[in-house]
Amino acid sequence: MIFDTLFDAVAQKRNPSVVGLDTMLDYLPADMLARFDASQPFESAEELLVEFNRGIIDATCDIVPAVKLQIAFYEMYGWQGIRAYQRSIEYAKQKGLIVIADAKRNDIGSTAAAYAKAFLGSTPLPGGGSKQAFGADILTVTGYLGEDGIKPFAELGKEGKGIFVLAKTSNPSSGQLQDQTIDGVPVYEVMGKLIEQWGAGLEGKRGYSAVGAVVGATYPEQGERLRKALPHTPFLLPGYGAQGATGDDLGKTFDADGLGAVVNASRSIICAYQKMEGMGYADAARKAALDMQTDILASLQNAGRLSY
Amino acid sequence: MIFDTLFDAVAQKRNPSVVGLDTMLDYLPADMLARFDASQPFESAEELLVEFNRGIIDATCDIVPAVKLQIAFYEMYGWQGIRAYQRSIEYAKQKGLIVIADAKRNDIGSTAAAYAKAFLGSTPLPGGGSKQAFGADILTVTGYLGEDGIKPFAELGKEGKGIFVLAKTSNPSSGQLQDQTIDGVPVYEVMGKLIEQWGAGLEGKRGYSAVGAVVGATYPEQGERLRKALPHTPFLLPGYGAQGATGDDLGKTFDADGLGAVVNASRSIICAYQKMEGMGYADAARKAALDMQTDILASLQNAGRLSY
Repeated sequence: MIFDTLFDAVAQKRNPSVVGLDTMLDYLPADMLARFDASQPFESAEELLVEFNRGIIDATCDIVPAVKLQIAFYEMYGWQGIRAYQRSIEYAKQKGLIVIADAKRNDIGSTAAAYAKAFLGSTPLPGGGSKQAFGADILTVTGYLGEDGIKPFAELGKEGKGIFVLAKTSNPSSGQLQDQTIDGVPVYEVMGKLIEQWGAGLEGKRGYSAVGAVVGATYPEQGERLRKALPHTPFLLPGYGAQGATGDDLGKTFDADGLGAVVNASRSIICAYQKMEGMGYADAARKAALDMQTDILASLQNAGRLSY
Repeated sequence: MIFDTLFDAVAQKRNPSVVGLDTMLDYLPADMLARFDASQPFESAEELLVEFNRGIIDATCDIVPAVKLQIAFYEMYGWQGIRAYQRSIEYAKQKGLIVIADAKRNDIGSTAAAYAKAFLGSTPLPGGGSKQAFGADILTVTGYLGEDGIKPFAELGKEGKGIFVLAKTSNPSSGQLQDQTIDGVPVYEVMGKLIEQWGAGLEGKRGYSAVGAVVGATYPEQGERLRKALPHTPFLLPGYGAQGATGDDLGKTFDADGLGAVVNASRSIICAYQKMEGMGYADAARKAALDMQTDILASLQNAGRLSY
């Protein structure tokens, strides 16, 4: 059960934070960028993205439980970018990390089934057998299409996979639809309750199901409200760091043990070197990840929600 | 303005239908599948998918204005599948077709900007210059995150690109969230009105903006309601054929000229050969596309909405 594995790793590493590999060429240090080969731009981008990610993974894999790879930044570099995505996932898994593919996929049932095979399962081949495409552990998905767009993903919960469905997103305009109310209940909570329902029967030993929710760390009040309303739903909390959320915002979005959620930071980790003069990008990322760990653990301590 | 171009092509070809290239190995004729090379499964899949798509494109490019490629089916085959996707788009464009990338992308602003570059724009390179990744004309996106997830796509309207945002989807469980009401207005219409608003200022000569809506052909009443409520929003109507919608369902989802919308069919076209004994897959697809054209034009005629 993937969220048992994830929260075991959180407790063991004493760290509920996730490093977001939202890697694009703009974020690379000058000495790496100097090796960019304009004659084969996307092939060169692939190699540089993989090299950069390996550096971040090597520098943080002993202190964080998971990485999250936002696929948009890789799709910018065409199929070569997607090959970088696949290679980065492979490397992270070799290093013992849990991999969250952040792709916000969803569609009607038959198409959702294809996405589920691509990201979490494996693809059937003619003549029998199958082959894994991306092989992530957890995928972010959207829930606007309702249950039949979720089922093909949720069913893989029994095979050790999981999803985080968008409930309350971290961006400034998320309230435009999500804060409107249906019979007095905000849309993000209506979605949250659907998520809780979609996960029923897929719970692991800690009571969390294979169907989680994305809850923006930038909206702590809504996070607290959802934490109370959705006792079986594990949370992914994006928006820490560059998007403005701090540890203070997060304590009450965790359960009584300081579990049930992981916090993601991307730019504030992978671009930390830009603010740490004289430090390489990998060392800077490690330092930023350790600072983030300290900040979040302090917040959990203050909220009386730290058992590990 | 892409929707001017699209509706000009609809009128010129007398056909508001779109062929959906939801191609996966399962759909290929036995003689093609027999050439599958299990020693290089995804490379072999790439070649077969491209070959199959070229056959469909060659057989239909003179009678349909556009193709729609559902990316989930390509992602199943990893980066090689994505290379097949890119090659298929290139081929369709060479043949004069408008290309709709059906990927339902969306995310927070900075990430949405990366998706917009990947699918519709081009990717900036170190040292200046840029390179196109997928080069589609129109992309399907989701609107759950609100305006700042839409802006990076909508801005490309000025550069001749467009989007279709999910309003009312074609699947059985779409009502689970979309039919719930906010102050008496169903969520799909609340979303529709946001879409209309996001497109303001991006209208072309026919009055349609660069920000369109996905409206399931399987829900004709909701389609009619949205057609009245959203006068500047072009529609993509999926769900014809295998999902159950027929021409009869569609007349009132078009404007008075039989424009303002395109209808997509995927399996009923690309797998038509399975029901037409002795006919090759490409010829069968052409026949199915012509039958679909006849059916939809008759429906527009009956609704008094055919000007071309």
